[in-house]
Amino acid sequence: MTPPDHIAVQDDAIAARLTPIADPLDPRIADYRDVRDRDLKGRGGLFMAEGAVVLRDMARSARFAFESVLITQKRVPAMTDWLAALPDAVAVYVAEGAVMDAIAGFPIHRGILALARRGEPIAPQILLDDAPAHALVLACFGITNHDNLGGIFRNAAAFGAAAILLDPQCCDPLYRKALRVSVGAAARVPFARLGPGPGDAGNACTLLRNHGFEPLALSPRGTLTLAQAAAHYQGRRALLLGSEGPGLAPDLIAAATSVRIDMAGDFDSLNVATTSGIALHALTRQAGG
Amino acid sequence: MTPPDHIAVQDDAIAARLTPIADPLDPRIADYRDVRDRDLKGRGGLFMAEGAVVLRDMARSARFAFESVLITQKRVPAMTDWLAALPDAVAVYVAEGAVMDAIAGFPIHRGILALARRGEPIAPQILLDDAPAHALVLACFGITNHDNLGGIFRNAAAFGAAAILLDPQCCDPLYRKALRVSVGAAARVPFARLGPGPGDAGNACTLLRNHGFEPLALSPRGTLTLAQAAAHYQGRRALLLGSEGPGLAPDLIAAATSVRIDMAGDFDSLNVATTSGIALHALTRQAGG
Repeated sequence: MTPPDHIAVQDDAIAARLTPIADPLDPRIADYRDVRDRDLKGRGGLFMAEGAVVLRDMARSARFAFESVLITQKRVPAMTDWLAALPDAVAVYVAEGAVMDAIAGFPIHRGILALARRGEPIAPQILLDDAPAHALVLACFGITNHDNLGGIFRNAAAFGAAAILLDPQCCDPLYRKALRVSVGAAARVPFARLGPGPGDAGNACTLLRNHGFEPLALSPRGTLTLAQAAAHYQGRRALLLGSEGPGLAPDLIAAATSVRIDMAGDFDSLNVATTSGIALHALTRQAGG
Repeated sequence: MTPPDHIAVQDDAIAARLTPIADPLDPRIADYRDVRDRDLKGRGGLFMAEGAVVLRDMARSARFAFESVLITQKRVPAMTDWLAALPDAVAVYVAEGAVMDAIAGFPIHRGILALARRGEPIAPQILLDDAPAHALVLACFGITNHDNLGGIFRNAAAFGAAAILLDPQCCDPLYRKALRVSVGAAARVPFARLGPGPGDAGNACTLLRNHGFEPLALSPRGTLTLAQAAAHYQGRRALLLGSEGPGLAPDLIAAATSVRIDMAGDFDSLNVATTSGIALHALTRQAGG
């Protein structure tokens, strides 16, 4: 069967861009070897992203520059448009699925990986200055679980949060798993690190207030319900989230307006990503209609 | 150092109940071998639960009967009260941590496993009849992911949902991982399976309406917002949840009142467990204050 013309043309245009890889030990794809080990060690200014949805999302952002791509032959047809739009300097390696799995050290079901360069770190002040008048931002403290941080970014994107601030203890939202769980949102929602100095967590509320953001700290013993906070605060707001278990530090809660999610009483337990979704929905509902 | 008297007495009382296990191949603990393989095969009328929180929760329920317990020596002191309350017929095996890990086939960080008998299946009609006048129940369709189903049960418990109905495609909430992610809620919130016959999913709305429950189907194109649904329907309500991706079947949405969660517009993506949390919070807020 002869493929239709337009497919053939696409394939020709892309074919020149592809570097076939047959040997898992080929030095050109050394960066893709033993992906999980490298995830743990970190990659300096680079990070690894996977899956078509995440990579398409990243390509729409000016914050990242792709360094290279590793794709299975089977996935090329579905990604020709995306591959064609990559700058010429980006190497595109193509391998059989089994070779790709041997390179990565485990099965890459999504069939596409890319190495990208992080943007320069942004100061929290710049993100806060740039936010709209009724912006909602998130500030995360001690979120060390990649599933939870990924889920928080996903919810932030779904409800249009303007930015996410992360204390020094939070894990990396561009870690491969966090990025995947976020369905690419970690590459969409701007984020910045809060300073690492002692007392800086407590100063987060001062920083937020100086930029006109009301800090709303989620706590089981909060003084306002979410609905009351949504009714009272409709300008710039920051939602403060702590890790499950310890929660937010008492000094942080004391320096903020504390807000609670009313529950059934005898089972006071919500996942922190779910908590962020409930609070984002409640606080953005007024604006959203 | 001599331990205080009351600790010594507790230990003596418990010591007689413990059966030490030194050999991972001891036939008495055959049910605990290769836990993950057995998880996949299923255990018939039995299920495996892990961790102190889940097991303490289960002990408060009349729905389950423990068959046996496997605990590390290190964990015994923290669980003496729970162990002492077990019926005499329940065998309690105690092993060194390394032996327990060798039995299970992977590290059991929580240090305690138990084999329990499921209660008799309950008919959905009975759960719906028994629910209070303003009850909110959940009905899940095609939730095959244990993390998601566990998260849904956790949220149901947090917001006091009266029951959960599961279509035949939903995974088992008493599967070890779902139970763990639910923080024991899968053993607290009553659940029932909807019939497996063809067309039964569509009949779910008839079943619900016959019992006075308004079926509210979550859909991105729902006609009401969550807030509107919360204001309109304050009697018995059922929240219908479909799997991420395909969502609820069109016939199910057509037979129900469809409800949407308004989002930012360009990133219409929420995890189904997070969705359940947002909807439960919105629909129970009126009653909860």
